[in-house]
Amino acid sequence: MADGAGNNFDIVILGGGSGGYACALRAVQLGKTVALIEKGKLGGTCLHTGCIPTKALLHAAEIADGAREGSHYGVKSTFEGIDMPGVNAYKDGVIDRLYKGLQGLIKSGGITVVEGDGKLVGPKTVEVAGQQYTGTNLVLATGSVSRTLGVEIGGRVITSSEALTMTEVPEKVVIIGGSVIGVEFASVWKSFGADVTIIEGLPTLIPLEDPSLSKQLERAFRKRKINFKTGVKFTGVEQTDSGVTVSLEDGTTIETDLVLVAVGRGPNSAGMGYEEAGITVDRGWVPTNERLATNVDGVFAVGDLVPGLQLAHRGFAHGIFVAEEIAGLKPQPVIDSGIPRVTYCDPEIASVGLTEPQAREKYGDDKVEIQDYNLGGNGKSQIIGTAGSVKLVREKDGPIVGVHMIGARYGEQVGEASLMVNWEAYPEDVAQFIHAHPTQNEALGEAALALAGKPLHSHA
Amino acid sequence: MADGAGNNFDIVILGGGSGGYACALRAVQLGKTVALIEKGKLGGTCLHTGCIPTKALLHAAEIADGAREGSHYGVKSTFEGIDMPGVNAYKDGVIDRLYKGLQGLIKSGGITVVEGDGKLVGPKTVEVAGQQYTGTNLVLATGSVSRTLGVEIGGRVITSSEALTMTEVPEKVVIIGGSVIGVEFASVWKSFGADVTIIEGLPTLIPLEDPSLSKQLERAFRKRKINFKTGVKFTGVEQTDSGVTVSLEDGTTIETDLVLVAVGRGPNSAGMGYEEAGITVDRGWVPTNERLATNVDGVFAVGDLVPGLQLAHRGFAHGIFVAEEIAGLKPQPVIDSGIPRVTYCDPEIASVGLTEPQAREKYGDDKVEIQDYNLGGNGKSQIIGTAGSVKLVREKDGPIVGVHMIGARYGEQVGEASLMVNWEAYPEDVAQFIHAHPTQNEALGEAALALAGKPLHSHA
Repeated sequence: MADGAGNNFDIVILGGGSGGYACALRAVQLGKTVALIEKGKLGGTCLHTGCIPTKALLHAAEIADGAREGSHYGVKSTFEGIDMPGVNAYKDGVIDRLYKGLQGLIKSGGITVVEGDGKLVGPKTVEVAGQQYTGTNLVLATGSVSRTLGVEIGGRVITSSEALTMTEVPEKVVIIGGSVIGVEFASVWKSFGADVTIIEGLPTLIPLEDPSLSKQLERAFRKRKINFKTGVKFTGVEQTDSGVTVSLEDGTTIETDLVLVAVGRGPNSAGMGYEEAGITVDRGWVPTNERLATNVDGVFAVGDLVPGLQLAHRGFAHGIFVAEEIAGLKPQPVIDSGIPRVTYCDPEIASVGLTEPQAREKYGDDKVEIQDYNLGGNGKSQIIGTAGSVKLVREKDGPIVGVHMIGARYGEQVGEASLMVNWEAYPEDVAQFIHAHPTQNEALGEAALALAGKPLHSHA
Repeated sequence: MADGAGNNFDIVILGGGSGGYACALRAVQLGKTVALIEKGKLGGTCLHTGCIPTKALLHAAEIADGAREGSHYGVKSTFEGIDMPGVNAYKDGVIDRLYKGLQGLIKSGGITVVEGDGKLVGPKTVEVAGQQYTGTNLVLATGSVSRTLGVEIGGRVITSSEALTMTEVPEKVVIIGGSVIGVEFASVWKSFGADVTIIEGLPTLIPLEDPSLSKQLERAFRKRKINFKTGVKFTGVEQTDSGVTVSLEDGTTIETDLVLVAVGRGPNSAGMGYEEAGITVDRGWVPTNERLATNVDGVFAVGDLVPGLQLAHRGFAHGIFVAEEIAGLKPQPVIDSGIPRVTYCDPEIASVGLTEPQAREKYGDDKVEIQDYNLGGNGKSQIIGTAGSVKLVREKDGPIVGVHMIGARYGEQVGEASLMVNWEAYPEDVAQFIHAHPTQNEALGEAALALAGKPLHSHA
């Protein structure tokens, strides 16, 4: 074992976000000495400027919608607007509590936390403020940053980071990008009272999801009066004295108060000395093999830095995997196709496994069966007033290979969906288990019953 | 096949609630002719005076709480009270929509629906308004009614049926019974602004659940200022001109405006000719074997009428089972211990499988391991502001045999919990699957990780 008391460690981890800290926690459980280097705050993007704060805003949005629509439920309530400093205090309170918890975990684990900007000065040596830290193994976990496609960020043109610290609700906002981040902010701002327009270059919103989800989300957003233009690229963003003008390739322009650039996230690796240390870097990403090893022996990469799904829970899993790999436990690789995905707009989107087109591509057109169970038949969904569906995709006479859900709160159903797909369950297997009535969860059972040929509350 | 055109059917079903109609739907799918006899409305207790309306009230309660607490989330909202006619209109709207859907399903299935009061006049013949319906098989599905323990219902003393049609919120209410129905109404009325006191004869609220859930629910109710007295029986309920006096065995009395008697539900079988037809009846219940057959050949019973868990989804499963049994499909029996249970108060309670004491009883004290994962470590639970835990019970070095959860919205997690228990998953099996972040669902993954010896966001 390397000597953790000096500057030599079993594992040096560069980046204290989801991937990095999960790796650190698991590694010390396995008896390894660990240095965890973070230039900002432990917890990284997810905790401080990503998953957690956006979901807090989305919950405030849900509360706002509930108050606004109280009379529908017999509740005498009013909605008088959003107090952004109040929203931020709530959001920051959640972050602070989780941050304290995380700091406590890291501390009690005996991990050496190094605060500062780390840069590789050798294949397994990181320098922070003139001090060098060398690991028997090095784990790169520097995550991702917002992409901007060349748009200058500043003033009325922002990324998700700035969008999380706004002091007032914009009157009119254009969101460039209709994927996860874009539709989540669209949902928040609409609930907060803004006039929202999404611009998406691909033909549908959430273009990476099953087409039926895109279609239903578009329908739901239309009903919520969230504007969107799909299949059209923006060509320019220009700030004026009083606002911003967004130009589109179809020749139209939109005048707005604020532009959110939400065109995805790219790797955060510039200037960190990766290439100089001999590590292969591909357009900023760090490619790895299935075991998350880079081309340099003993150097691993985890999380958003590794091409693939950009999700905090993928980062956690990567981090745990690498710790176990280094400890010689021979863990099962983390396969992107089995990772559940949730988009937290209203209605929520959740999915795992293959979309219907992907399944048709893989198995052949006549070798795929689907069941798209409409939430109109689900009592609890009717009670909370949401529309949507639970779609199961199976290999004909074979296992369920994909689950695709839309509806308020359906993100929370992705756990059972993930077990189905990852355990390669047949609809018949799931159908025999009783789902609790009346829950939204029941819709998964009903979809399985229907796909197994014995529908209960299914309308043809 | 019997002649469905006349009054002979393959299957005559007495009772059109969850058990009866599910049996009818599955039976016609399997080519059987079916008469479904119902004296009230198709859908029975669950749809009209049970699960569905109570959950609608609970959702209105959630909306009320959200509006009341808006400022915590930065939402400028007010809560000015409950408009019970409005609540009822919403609730009835949900029921109507689901009822129409159910009627459509039944109709399109080709089921003969007989409206009226049915009584057995032979072992497999039911008479309704002078007309006889005979089945090759008879299915008894007459369900349950509120028990009252001798208390006279009327005026200010009500059961859950009356509680669902109230025109105003009581100022002060005493609920006799701290099990599922009692704590759900306590939760609703407290959110609606009433002063609520629960009286429970057993030592804890929700006494059939794992003790850790009872303890946490009591803590949560104390925080919500819902009063309760446990371990004390009521001895009398007396209506006065201005209210009701409830006497307890400890000599104290409580003056209140309204009393809800929520001491469970008993079998609905009186005066239906079951015993006269030779069917064994035990204190009103109809006992069956594991295959839901009564002592009379070709006569089955399903749902609440059969001793065991009283749950609509057990009724569905029973009904489907009997239809498949009659059709010769040899289905797997419905085992109560694998059925998920949800109590929809705030915080919600959800469980499946053995409680910790039951597991210790079954496997021995040193052969059980538990993990009680505190929701303080769950980001989404922090965001929605709920406390609670997810407790896994495993046989030492063996499978997960029980899952017990408490926390707002945790009822929706019971699907994955049910798959774990019914598939006899090991914590190590579940731990390898990635749970989406930040979801409440993730707490199940964290609990499994911790129980598998590799905690992530777990504080010791």
